[in-house]
Amino acid sequence: MKIAALDSSGLVATVAVTENGVLTGEYTTNYKKTHSQTLLPMLDELKRMIDLELESIDAIAIAKGPGSFTGLRIGAATAKGLAQALEKPIIPVPTVDALAYNLYGTDKLICPIMDARRSQVYTGLYHFVKKDAGQEFTLELHTEMAQCAISVQELAEILNVRGEEVIFLGDGVPVYASALRELLKVPFTFAPASCNRQRAACVAVLGEKLFEKGIFQTAAEHAPDYLRLSQAERERMEADEAKKKQLNQMETAKN
Amino acid sequence: MKIAALDSSGLVATVAVTENGVLTGEYTTNYKKTHSQTLLPMLDELKRMIDLELESIDAIAIAKGPGSFTGLRIGAATAKGLAQALEKPIIPVPTVDALAYNLYGTDKLICPIMDARRSQVYTGLYHFVKKDAGQEFTLELHTEMAQCAISVQELAEILNVRGEEVIFLGDGVPVYASALRELLKVPFTFAPASCNRQRAACVAVLGEKLFEKGIFQTAAEHAPDYLRLSQAERERMEADEAKKKQLNQMETAKN
Repeated sequence: MKIAALDSSGLVATVAVTENGVLTGEYTTNYKKTHSQTLLPMLDELKRMIDLELESIDAIAIAKGPGSFTGLRIGAATAKGLAQALEKPIIPVPTVDALAYNLYGTDKLICPIMDARRSQVYTGLYHFVKKDAGQEFTLELHTEMAQCAISVQELAEILNVRGEEVIFLGDGVPVYASALRELLKVPFTFAPASCNRQRAACVAVLGEKLFEKGIFQTAAEHAPDYLRLSQAERERMEADEAKKKQLNQMETAKN
Repeated sequence: MKIAALDSSGLVATVAVTENGVLTGEYTTNYKKTHSQTLLPMLDELKRMIDLELESIDAIAIAKGPGSFTGLRIGAATAKGLAQALEKPIIPVPTVDALAYNLYGTDKLICPIMDARRSQVYTGLYHFVKKDAGQEFTLELHTEMAQCAISVQELAEILNVRGEEVIFLGDGVPVYASALRELLKVPFTFAPASCNRQRAACVAVLGEKLFEKGIFQTAAEHAPDYLRLSQAERERMEADEAKKKQLNQMETAKN
């Protein structure tokens, strides 16, 4: 199976192509350019370098969210455009799961953290567990806590209760490392540069597993999974509630 | 510290830039083109995408070998050219060590295998071990068996004696998977597409560790580490020995 994968959920823009268990190509940048300047040009450059015929792709895997709203929208738009034109399915891969897959094979608890602003992180908890415990085993990513948006304080409490050794990764690390050092009571470490940010290769590998389970969509069906409301939606909701409250108070004063 | 890293030791061509614990960019292809068509153009493309000023690089890390002789020569020539022009040091990173670093954080025995032809593999054995066993630990790559060229039969015997669970990776896997399945008596698995081939990001991370230990060279000092003789050298040696033997036999016949 040949998969093209994209991830623009964070600061990183990353594209990859896998085919039958091998990474044919991967291109990743972590730079201040907007994803509209990087994602599609990078895929185009990779395509040229490995003589990729887009028609030969079986599916497009995309980091579906959470993440930066604009980043997710650019990623989704790119994936939907490709899927529509090529008439191929989209495989929506949870962003935090794909981040966790960076640490394939570890026995430690994996805790990706993405800076979600407003004192929150997008996070989740994962283990690699041994399957088919014969002589030839496989290591599968197991979700201990599904991806969600919580505060670093809440996360530290959960980790302290679990009491396991944990490896952190993600763009939340530089932001929250010192807070974590203060809050944590369990042994911990931070993943090195080779495996501490989004990689489309991980999106592709997880995408293939989801595809085998029948998890895929049409271009029309796909939409990012923001996990939280956008700032505009939040502000409108707050305004609506403030107005409701005001009306209630006026009502009460009248009676 | 900012490091540019290259690896063209196998079928894969890969370039990366890391800076202070973050991967700024990585470009990897695994395609039938020769490395002279890929390596430098890929670095140039990455440089353009992340507005990299080559003068800002502190050192050039290179997979020093073993590997394909031609691939290593192209890699070494590229690194030496850059290092000479920029007046920066070269950090020579053992290829098999960098491959092993793909599996950062695993508790299993790591066994990279690269197809070395002539029924041999370039291989080595590695563990990640916990250092600074306080609350904030680090995981360091520990070499159990240094990189070498041996037969798959010898490798299987060594692994069977050790009796540990092992993860294989590298371009030797598709070639020797069925032989390993027959020969091994220990539990084993094969790494997935996201982490089973050379990555320049791993060369960069290990390179920085070597640099801190004072292991670096000038452009003039650097040479690939082939681990074995080239075919031409081997054939000349065999011819020399055959000639010596013939002379000895003539000598004996005379007396």
